[in-house]
Amino acid sequence: MNSREIVLASRPLGLPSTGNFRTESKILDKPGNNEVLLKAWYFSVDPYMRGRMSNVKSYAPSFEVDKPIKGGVVARVIESRSKLFAEGDCVIGILPWATYCIEKAENLRKVDTQMFPPGYHLGILGMPGLTAYFGIMEIGKPKPGETVVISGAAGAVGIVAGQIAKLQGAYVAGIAGTDEKCKLLTDEYRFDVALNYKTSKALRKDIAASCLNGVDVYFDNVGGEVTDAVVANLNNHSRFVLCGQISQYNNTRIAMSPAMLPVFLTRSVMLQGFIVGNYSTRFDEARVQLTEWVSKGQLKYTETIIHGFDKLPETFISLFSGKNQGKMLVKTE
Amino acid sequence: MNSREIVLASRPLGLPSTGNFRTESKILDKPGNNEVLLKAWYFSVDPYMRGRMSNVKSYAPSFEVDKPIKGGVVARVIESRSKLFAEGDCVIGILPWATYCIEKAENLRKVDTQMFPPGYHLGILGMPGLTAYFGIMEIGKPKPGETVVISGAAGAVGIVAGQIAKLQGAYVAGIAGTDEKCKLLTDEYRFDVALNYKTSKALRKDIAASCLNGVDVYFDNVGGEVTDAVVANLNNHSRFVLCGQISQYNNTRIAMSPAMLPVFLTRSVMLQGFIVGNYSTRFDEARVQLTEWVSKGQLKYTETIIHGFDKLPETFISLFSGKNQGKMLVKTE
Repeated sequence: MNSREIVLASRPLGLPSTGNFRTESKILDKPGNNEVLLKAWYFSVDPYMRGRMSNVKSYAPSFEVDKPIKGGVVARVIESRSKLFAEGDCVIGILPWATYCIEKAENLRKVDTQMFPPGYHLGILGMPGLTAYFGIMEIGKPKPGETVVISGAAGAVGIVAGQIAKLQGAYVAGIAGTDEKCKLLTDEYRFDVALNYKTSKALRKDIAASCLNGVDVYFDNVGGEVTDAVVANLNNHSRFVLCGQISQYNNTRIAMSPAMLPVFLTRSVMLQGFIVGNYSTRFDEARVQLTEWVSKGQLKYTETIIHGFDKLPETFISLFSGKNQGKMLVKTE
Repeated sequence: MNSREIVLASRPLGLPSTGNFRTESKILDKPGNNEVLLKAWYFSVDPYMRGRMSNVKSYAPSFEVDKPIKGGVVARVIESRSKLFAEGDCVIGILPWATYCIEKAENLRKVDTQMFPPGYHLGILGMPGLTAYFGIMEIGKPKPGETVVISGAAGAVGIVAGQIAKLQGAYVAGIAGTDEKCKLLTDEYRFDVALNYKTSKALRKDIAASCLNGVDVYFDNVGGEVTDAVVANLNNHSRFVLCGQISQYNNTRIAMSPAMLPVFLTRSVMLQGFIVGNYSTRFDEARVQLTEWVSKGQLKYTETIIHGFDKLPETFISLFSGKNQGKMLVKTE
């Protein structure tokens, strides 16, 4: 079986370029005992993958140079030597960027593609949805009437986090980078207000004007100056859900920022950095709730699907230009 | 009755000077119904009072210019028009920097000066002790064998926090600004190791070398570069007990610092800013425990007592030069 795979050709310095990736041909063996042969269908591209391209120690091990990039993939089983899966099953796992691959059955989970489109398992019912769920429900814990601000609000995690906060009865403000995204947030996703940080002349004041009771929960996907502006508006006993820092992932040196600790101190702020894996024992419970909300139409969702395996590197890179709305996926064909 | 009181003459810009204070004479009326006439005995000077000298909105209201400074004071009742207190009682309250004052009985609490010296109620059994207790027991929650680092370790809060962490079975490292303080921490207060940040040439590395398992709990009284060095050593799922930022209190503009959020994110750090008042409903429970530890000799304690009411301004200012060891008090005579 011939497969094509995309490897990390070199570690990016700053914003990755397509030159940091290389496509290779590979001939696959037959699957061994308890293994399956998979044909990739949908690939997830996610900001956290940037971290794995560096060789800085972090929660996920670094990708190796000349080895395939790995990420969330929905695939079809085309040959099975496992009792767990049959030919034709649709599965999800952390898999290589490859058109075909052989994987141990134990690393895969079967997904239902009848009830929801396959991409949903990489988005609202997958890692981004779970991230939004635990960030709001376990860390931010907004009470009815409290104010929640979400940065990167039109991204895969942000649109879900904002809607879950609305379901908890919060007043929800989203921050995004285009007027189109802002319109989507208020018109489609029921955010109470959306602010375009790129056109705002005084974001700190604009947040204050949009959130008249201050900010009780800040769900941060972005960091940098957007976060500085929100922090200035945090209330006493507010919660800072530290989910992402996409504005910082391509930094080549540690950024300097206005010291936040004096604010966190005098306002008794609680901050929790987290990755979704911290809650892995509770994924099932969260998926049940998310599935129910999606089924009832209480959680809406957007995917941007790019067609063509070869588009993976450029689609991944585009995450950092802020062009995507909702979950960004690459479909093999 | 003639009293002398120290008022805020002008708001300090940067480090306060004695010129920001002024001593005035005042003639006191007789105490009214439910009031008592008090003779001050011990005054507490605390870093947080610097914040009240500015006109920036914070958790405690600003002192007014030309009005007396207020802080923790232990005083004797010399005339009572309240059923709650009798002449000769020793009480504690937030009282003016004045040799005599009249106060509503409801704002005072009687203290026992037989069992412990009066200053203890302003220190280990008072605000600093309670701050250390809740910071360690409710936020840091060190498990046996975990590593706790304390900045400002030789200060009123730090020495107590470190000893409470030891009582929980933690390995405790203190950071202080003189070799004398460091020696005191290890010899007297049972800290496992103490680092002098002023003589360290690479504090980040020195912490790593002293804390071979990384840092699980950071109890911060100081902020600034000391904190930057500790943050670099934080473990996954570590807790940042944000208690003070004394290095920043005299800043005339917002300091810039290396962005900490990426570290907090990738290591799932929990940070909680707090003031002791957040736990006011549980002060009694904490005092019972602190009293037991002190009585049994499990918590040791140091006071620095400066004699003379007129020394209050300079003693307060000296807090920012790092010269004090343990709790700093001014005794009226």
